[in-house]
Amino acid sequence: MVTITDTISIHSKKELDMINITDELESIVSRSKLNAGICHVFVAGATGALIAIEYEPGLKKDFPDLLERISPKDLYYAHHETWHDDNGRSHVRASLIGPDITLPIRNGRLVHGTWQQIAFLELDTRGRSRELIVTLTGD
Amino acid sequence: MVTITDTISIHSKKELDMINITDELESIVSRSKLNAGICHVFVAGATGALIAIEYEPGLKKDFPDLLERISPKDLYYAHHETWHDDNGRSHVRASLIGPDITLPIRNGRLVHGTWQQIAFLELDTRGRSRELIVTLTGD
Amino acid sequence: MVTITDTISIHSKKELDMINITDELESIVSRSKLNAGICHVFVAGATGALIAIEYEPGLKKDFPDLLERISPKDLYYAHHETWHDDNGRSHVRASLIGPDITLPIRNGRLVHGTWQQIAFLELDTRGRSRELIVTLTGD
Repeated sequence: MVTITDTISIHSKKELDMINITDELESIVSRSKLNAGICHVFVAGATGALIAIEYEPGLKKDFPDLLERISPKDLYYAHHETWHDDNGRSHVRASLIGPDITLPIRNGRLVHGTWQQIAFLELDTRGRSRELIVTLTGD
Repeated sequence: MVTITDTISIHSKKELDMINITDELESIVSRSKLNAGICHVFVAGATGALIAIEYEPGLKKDFPDLLERISPKDLYYAHHETWHDDNGRSHVRASLIGPDITLPIRNGRLVHGTWQQIAFLELDTRGRSRELIVTLTGD
Repeated sequence: MVTITDTISIHSKKELDMINITDELESIVSRSKLNAGICHVFVAGATGALIAIEYEPGLKKDFPDLLERISPKDLYYAHHETWHDDNGRSHVRASLIGPDITLPIRNGRLVHGTWQQIAFLELDTRGRSRELIVTLTGD
C-alpha cells in the first residue's frame, strides 16, 4: 500500500460559485496507478465546502437556494461582532456541509455515479483562491 | 497494511426508505480479518445518502421530517427544467447529507455506538436498486 | 504504510457545548511520526457530531442557532414515543452533520486552515463523557 498526495488549485469568482473538480480528481487517480483504495479531498479553510452533486445548471441554483433557506444572508450572525466581518452565513453553511469528501478507487478509476460529480462550493462572500488537498491511499 | 473491497446491494422500495446496513458492514469487517483501520462506504448516485442514526421507528419519521422542512417536496426546483424531472428535492437533500461515511475498525470489529447504526437513505422519488461500495484499509 | 490508533476523552457540560479538539489531534499526528496520510476522527454515539469551524465565540452561537432553525427544540419528535425520551432534536441534528471527519497529514503535520478548527459538538440534552476514536493511516 502507498500514500499519494496532490493538490487542486481553485479560483472562485464569487459567492456560491460551484466548481466541478471531477476531471482533475480522475486524472490524479489515473496518474497514481492505484488499482483499489480511497481518494480523500479536503479544503483548508472554514468558508468553502466539498459536495457530491449532479453538476447541471438547475441544481447550481437549487442547492444555494437550500442554503439560503436555512441560513439566510440577511440574518443576524454573532460572528460579525467578533471580526466586524460579513460572512457569518458562509461559516455556518460550510460547517454544516463539511470540508471533506472521500470516494472509492476501483479498477484504477475514481468511483462516482454517471450523473454524480464532485464540486467545490465557494461559501465566502467573495471569490477566493484556494488549494484543495488530495490524498490517495491504496494498492 | 492492506486494502479490502466489497459491495452491499440495496433495493429500496420508495422515497425516504431507510435501510440499516450495520450488520452487513460488520460481516465485511469480520471477514476481512483486519484488526485496526477504517471502513469507508460510498453510494455512487446523486440521490442517495449514508447516515449514522439510531435505527428505530420514531427517527425513521423524524429525520425525513427535517429534510421536508429544509427542502419541501412542493417547492420549485430549477433542476426540473433541465430534465423535466421531479426529483430536485432528492438531489439537494443528498448533496447536503453526503454520499460517504467512514467508521473505525478496532480489535477486529467495526466501531459504532450501541444505539448508533449505519443506514442508507433513499432520497429519490421512487425505489431503486443500488450497489454501495465498501473499502477497508488497515492492518 | 502504517495504521496508528488513539482516543480523545471529551467531557461536555451541556447541550450545544462545542469543544475544540484541534490541539489534541495535532499532538496525535506529531507523535505518530507520519509524514503524509489521513487522520480520521469518529464519535461512537448518535447524539454527538464532529465539525470544522472557526472556533470563536460568535460562531459558537451562530451554528447552534442554525440547528435550532432547522430542528427546533419545541417541535414534536416521534423519537420521544419510542423511549419516552426528550432528545429527538439531538438525534436528527447529529445524523445531518455526521459523526466523522477526515483531515490530511502533510509534512508531518495535520492540515487545516489558520482559522479552521476541529470541534466536537454535544447535541444531547445534557453533558456527557465520550471517547473519540482517532485513526491515522499513512507513511
